[in-house]
Amino acid sequence: MNYPFLQSEMKAEIALRFEKVRAEMATAGIDALLVASSTNQFYLSACVFRGYILVTPDRDPVWFMVPPSYAPEDTLNAATIHKPEMIPGWMLEKGYPVPVKVGLEFDDLLYSEITRLKALFPESEIVDGSKPLRAARMIKTDYEIEKMREDGMHQARSYSKVAACFQSGMTDLELQIEVERVLRLEGCLGYLRAAGSRMELNLGSVISGENADAPSPYDFAMGGAGVDPSLPVGADGTTIKPGTTVMLDMNGGFNGYQSDMTRTWYLESVSELARKAHECSRSILRELERIAIPGTPISNLYNRAVEMAEAEGLSELFMGHRSKAKFIGHGIGIELNEQPVVMARNHQPLQKNMTIALEPKFVIPHVGAVGVENTYRVTDHGLENLTVFPEELQEL
Amino acid sequence: MNYPFLQSEMKAEIALRFEKVRAEMATAGIDALLVASSTNQFYLSACVFRGYILVTPDRDPVWFMVPPSYAPEDTLNAATIHKPEMIPGWMLEKGYPVPVKVGLEFDDLLYSEITRLKALFPESEIVDGSKPLRAARMIKTDYEIEKMREDGMHQARSYSKVAACFQSGMTDLELQIEVERVLRLEGCLGYLRAAGSRMELNLGSVISGENADAPSPYDFAMGGAGVDPSLPVGADGTTIKPGTTVMLDMNGGFNGYQSDMTRTWYLESVSELARKAHECSRSILRELERIAIPGTPISNLYNRAVEMAEAEGLSELFMGHRSKAKFIGHGIGIELNEQPVVMARNHQPLQKNMTIALEPKFVIPHVGAVGVENTYRVTDHGLENLTVFPEELQEL
Repeated sequence: MNYPFLQSEMKAEIALRFEKVRAEMATAGIDALLVASSTNQFYLSACVFRGYILVTPDRDPVWFMVPPSYAPEDTLNAATIHKPEMIPGWMLEKGYPVPVKVGLEFDDLLYSEITRLKALFPESEIVDGSKPLRAARMIKTDYEIEKMREDGMHQARSYSKVAACFQSGMTDLELQIEVERVLRLEGCLGYLRAAGSRMELNLGSVISGENADAPSPYDFAMGGAGVDPSLPVGADGTTIKPGTTVMLDMNGGFNGYQSDMTRTWYLESVSELARKAHECSRSILRELERIAIPGTPISNLYNRAVEMAEAEGLSELFMGHRSKAKFIGHGIGIELNEQPVVMARNHQPLQKNMTIALEPKFVIPHVGAVGVENTYRVTDHGLENLTVFPEELQEL
Repeated sequence: MNYPFLQSEMKAEIALRFEKVRAEMATAGIDALLVASSTNQFYLSACVFRGYILVTPDRDPVWFMVPPSYAPEDTLNAATIHKPEMIPGWMLEKGYPVPVKVGLEFDDLLYSEITRLKALFPESEIVDGSKPLRAARMIKTDYEIEKMREDGMHQARSYSKVAACFQSGMTDLELQIEVERVLRLEGCLGYLRAAGSRMELNLGSVISGENADAPSPYDFAMGGAGVDPSLPVGADGTTIKPGTTVMLDMNGGFNGYQSDMTRTWYLESVSELARKAHECSRSILRELERIAIPGTPISNLYNRAVEMAEAEGLSELFMGHRSKAKFIGHGIGIELNEQPVVMARNHQPLQKNMTIALEPKFVIPHVGAVGVENTYRVTDHGLENLTVFPEELQEL
């Protein structure tokens, strides 16, 4: 088994992440954080294994490995266990004090999983450990940004082949399937890691024509009816018609991190209203790229986007028509939906090296969705785009 | 929005499922079950929506819809709410007694989600609602079995194109990508619904050669190193070599239900040991198809499979080599991993219309994995195969 956290070239990077997590633990008064979710395992180890990571303020982190994952013999601070109930005994034996406040991942693990882990620490107060981990993950390291830049490059290369995937008479779903193949051949892992229960999706969202105005029960910015009531989102299987748009928002996960990028195509022709709304989306992105510097309240981005749509008389179509999303962007990294959420009530200041996907989109009834989404890094001088690819409405 | 539970042709089917759930609630003494997970929503509504379903012993079930999902105006027993905190007030207004024992989905929802829902019922005892729902789902209705038969047919049609997908010099991953496309064009939804945290996968598992002996931290029967440490399972990206096998265990979800089917191919030639183990897998299936009748303890299936592998001198290779799975099959339906688990310590009797995937597999060092997996229905006379497709080792 391959454990990147043991490789010398990753050690400084992993140590940096632990420092960030420890700082958040200190703020929350947590003196033991037990990490079990694959998302946070990957953050702290650069791999997914079967087991747990124990983070404490003063000692080296400990990897508890459950077979078939195992701890290489020469690994300091790793232990093989057969069940998490062996952790307290190990801690006692190594002279750890009983923790006062234990953090467990309330937002990442099932109720039954947390209940089992809680019982390991009967004398401790148990608090939410998801928040400090999310807060640490919100600000990316240079290494993480490089990974996301790599994702953006692969995603752009895939998107450059979309028009070649199209054949006259195709349905939205048939086009999606060909683009999925292109993405997979480009190295897309084909798995969407997302937080929470309301993000079910296959390899992406392709919406065209009327289907753009079909609301979905999921927490995505755009809807779509889907092709089956068990997965009501995205492509609905209808033929792509002349005069309609096709918006592609496909999976950008190639290396454990993700980029999120949307571009819009049209077949044969497209209405002036759709063109105008698409250009408004681009203008909003240009404006947000400029004003989004460290210290800017995140709500300013949302409010400015809403203002600009309004100034163009496009409010009714902004972020949906029959049903509207209440955000225009979201943090992104290992998970598609990380902190911060770019919405009106998030007054948190932007920080350097946050990575956010901004997706000011419009739904034009009878035409389809238009707009652009890019994944950005916050720099001292505004946003750096990690998903560089032409933004114009493109003909299929 | 499309609500199948309102369609007259689905009403009897949905009513039947509620009866099954109510019977399990009665056994567990639960007088109010609040369902929120998409899996159980789909079971009780044949669709996924944003909201909750309230099941009580005596009254009609109630659908609480959260926008953009909505309750059609003429729907009896449906209500639009904006947050779950509105449910207790609604119940009070309609004259519901305060429930004594409330079931919530401990095994399906995040800790934070259950914590929020628990607070709605401060005067009630809160117990696990996942178990009664799983128990009800374990025995399929005729309608559900028909859906799974449909899945098996689509999956078989896809598998019939595997050899045509192969080109000399391909990697396991390249072959997988072409098969994914075939599956998607056949109607595969491209989304794996599975229970628990240890089932991350893209559209399937393709393992070939040495990679069959690489353990994975996930709860799948077979391993594989994967191509990235963020998703360590399945294809590892190496070229398929003459003399090795390629085992395909791809996604069989076409309609909200799933079938699970594995077949094995080889390139140019394959060792006698691999042929023998493959035939042993088939013999095990034939034997289990015969002995698996209602009343048979499930552990008998496991033990008989282990015995037969042993009688052929293949114990060391059965269900893995360096790392071994401790089950040879599992229930399947809406989720890939349902009840019952076919393992030594499950002495539960088989029941008619359980649906189980049986996968007696072998790992042959330096050659790859061999064996067959079928999805079956338990009938009075043994198992009915829902995944009818040639089982022989096939040449690529």
